[in-house]
Amino acid sequence: MEMPIGTFEVVAKDNKTKARRGRLYTRRGIIETPAFAPDATYAVLKHLSTHDLEKIGLQMILTNTYHVNIRPGLEVIKEHNGIHNFLKYDKPILTDSGGWQVFSLVYESKMGKVLDNGVKFRDHISGDEHFLTPQKAIDIQLTLDSDILMVLDYPVSPNANKKDNLYSISRTTAWAKISKDTFVKDERSRDKILYGIIQGANDKDLRKKSFEELEQIGFGGYGFGGVPLYDDVVEYTADLIPDSKLRYMMGSGTPDDIKKYVAMGYDLFDCVVPTRNARHGLLYTSEGEMRITNAKFKFDKKPVDEKCDCELCTTYSRSYLHHLFKIKEPLGRRLATIHNLRFYVKMMEEMRKLINH
Amino acid sequence: MEMPIGTFEVVAKDNKTKARRGRLYTRRGIIETPAFAPDATYAVLKHLSTHDLEKIGLQMILTNTYHVNIRPGLEVIKEHNGIHNFLKYDKPILTDSGGWQVFSLVYESKMGKVLDNGVKFRDHISGDEHFLTPQKAIDIQLTLDSDILMVLDYPVSPNANKKDNLYSISRTTAWAKISKDTFVKDERSRDKILYGIIQGANDKDLRKKSFEELEQIGFGGYGFGGVPLYDDVVEYTADLIPDSKLRYMMGSGTPDDIKKYVAMGYDLFDCVVPTRNARHGLLYTSEGEMRITNAKFKFDKKPVDEKCDCELCTTYSRSYLHHLFKIKEPLGRRLATIHNLRFYVKMMEEMRKLINH
Repeated sequence: MEMPIGTFEVVAKDNKTKARRGRLYTRRGIIETPAFAPDATYAVLKHLSTHDLEKIGLQMILTNTYHVNIRPGLEVIKEHNGIHNFLKYDKPILTDSGGWQVFSLVYESKMGKVLDNGVKFRDHISGDEHFLTPQKAIDIQLTLDSDILMVLDYPVSPNANKKDNLYSISRTTAWAKISKDTFVKDERSRDKILYGIIQGANDKDLRKKSFEELEQIGFGGYGFGGVPLYDDVVEYTADLIPDSKLRYMMGSGTPDDIKKYVAMGYDLFDCVVPTRNARHGLLYTSEGEMRITNAKFKFDKKPVDEKCDCELCTTYSRSYLHHLFKIKEPLGRRLATIHNLRFYVKMMEEMRKLINH
Repeated sequence: MEMPIGTFEVVAKDNKTKARRGRLYTRRGIIETPAFAPDATYAVLKHLSTHDLEKIGLQMILTNTYHVNIRPGLEVIKEHNGIHNFLKYDKPILTDSGGWQVFSLVYESKMGKVLDNGVKFRDHISGDEHFLTPQKAIDIQLTLDSDILMVLDYPVSPNANKKDNLYSISRTTAWAKISKDTFVKDERSRDKILYGIIQGANDKDLRKKSFEELEQIGFGGYGFGGVPLYDDVVEYTADLIPDSKLRYMMGSGTPDDIKKYVAMGYDLFDCVVPTRNARHGLLYTSEGEMRITNAKFKFDKKPVDEKCDCELCTTYSRSYLHHLFKIKEPLGRRLATIHNLRFYVKMMEEMRKLINH
């Protein structure tokens, strides 16, 4: 049976935790959840080609709207008829709204200002002034032609006071409404998916308020917005979202985090942790973390992980990888990135296998 | 018929130039000449795994004794029973003697001193003092367990005065004698090849003198030592070497250089040109050089070279590669490296095909 694009179905549940196994239907095939999407910030996953992504077994990737919009710029993507043809990737691509990057500029670098109808900011490359509105965030993502889009939200710090927190929720709700209207009215949205983002920082009541307002507008899935400081808030928020909708944990994801959040019922993850840590020589293995720059690996002829089937582990010794990191050789960072992503792919597969009731 | 290791046979000649097609028998198979070996300085070809080298179709690589001896150090290579098992490469590896690097330290950085029996120097990493002798250069290379070894020579600048030039020749001859004696006496040399290096800078008479002294000792092949400034000297030197011996042009190799030197009868080349230029965004194509950072490629959807079958050209647009270079993404440098090496492999194949009489 052909399922409509955006359909999310839960196909199995865990009998000990709230973990569930699901399927998200996109125009580029089914995403089996729980799923992990690595971050291809500038329309590239550092060190890897899309053939590499294929070989690693990734189901999807995330691309950052803010970054791609600056470099190479929307005109270049248009010339290629969309981001998939630009970076030659035929699996689903999720784009964020750019909101988080813009708000980082506003809060941390004081390079912008939030208004009721959008955010004014200067980008970190050219210093050019931009005005990002919820309409524009949707339009850019539709032009990128990604498969899963996110609304422009207005996050606050986890420790924000109640007033700021409430303003964040009211902006996010108002902008989510505009985002959905813009999305629905645009012909290009027919084969795409749009998700909302729940605010509320670490206040459960406000999480509930934010969710209910968004659910009023209606989305097929929801992102957890903000740095998840308190597990009980993260879990509480998952519980708010009905079983039939996808729960997306944005930007968090050590292996332990992912396992924990899967057990709470989250379905989708993106994070720079496996790739960034790989580039710094921190590898995830079946026996725990390995810091390959450690002197004890200088003469170690064993593979990084005997249980791993990636190019690194089936070819080279720990000693060789140690050497590559010592001489700051990009091949080292590449092989470590391949390894960590393969580790994540297998970890997600393993989790899906275990959710079987 | 099984040929002894080190055998070099000329199998065809060009009817317009002095170019010849040959076969060099090594313990790791036959190298078809004219052949090109890229430089894997620190036991790694920047950005590439040995699977990549395989896929590109390279016949062999060069590794720098000086660099590998410092990092990772000989003990690590010993632990792996040789360089092949360290970097997981099963095709022939040529090692230089380390002489050129050491003399660069002596001349340019004043970090060493040449004595009659070797060179004293401090390395550029730890500043530790070393004393490299011809014996030691052979011993290190035998420990690395490379397939083709080079004697420790004593180069001079192309503009050296006659006295310095003569001293360079006398040292090179004396050290070549010691090198060959050391090599022959060592059990580990049985399945390996040792080549001499002709000095003489840009003085033809001294090139002749250097060659004749080395030929007296007897090597199966000769490197052309020193920066080749004058074509007539380069050609004259090739003519000195008998037809039956391999002629190795060390460290030179734009595509035009290689074509020119092949026409003079050189058989083997190594050079950082294709890989270093790739990392700086200079690509070799069937239609000439391409500087991918040029703004005109920003929207260009064509492949870098329509006639090329490499990962870059069969996957991505010039626009995408331009973007990767603009954001200083290592994948860009990797894809360009793959492309340039593939270009060289095909160029050498093409030349071999054309030498057919």
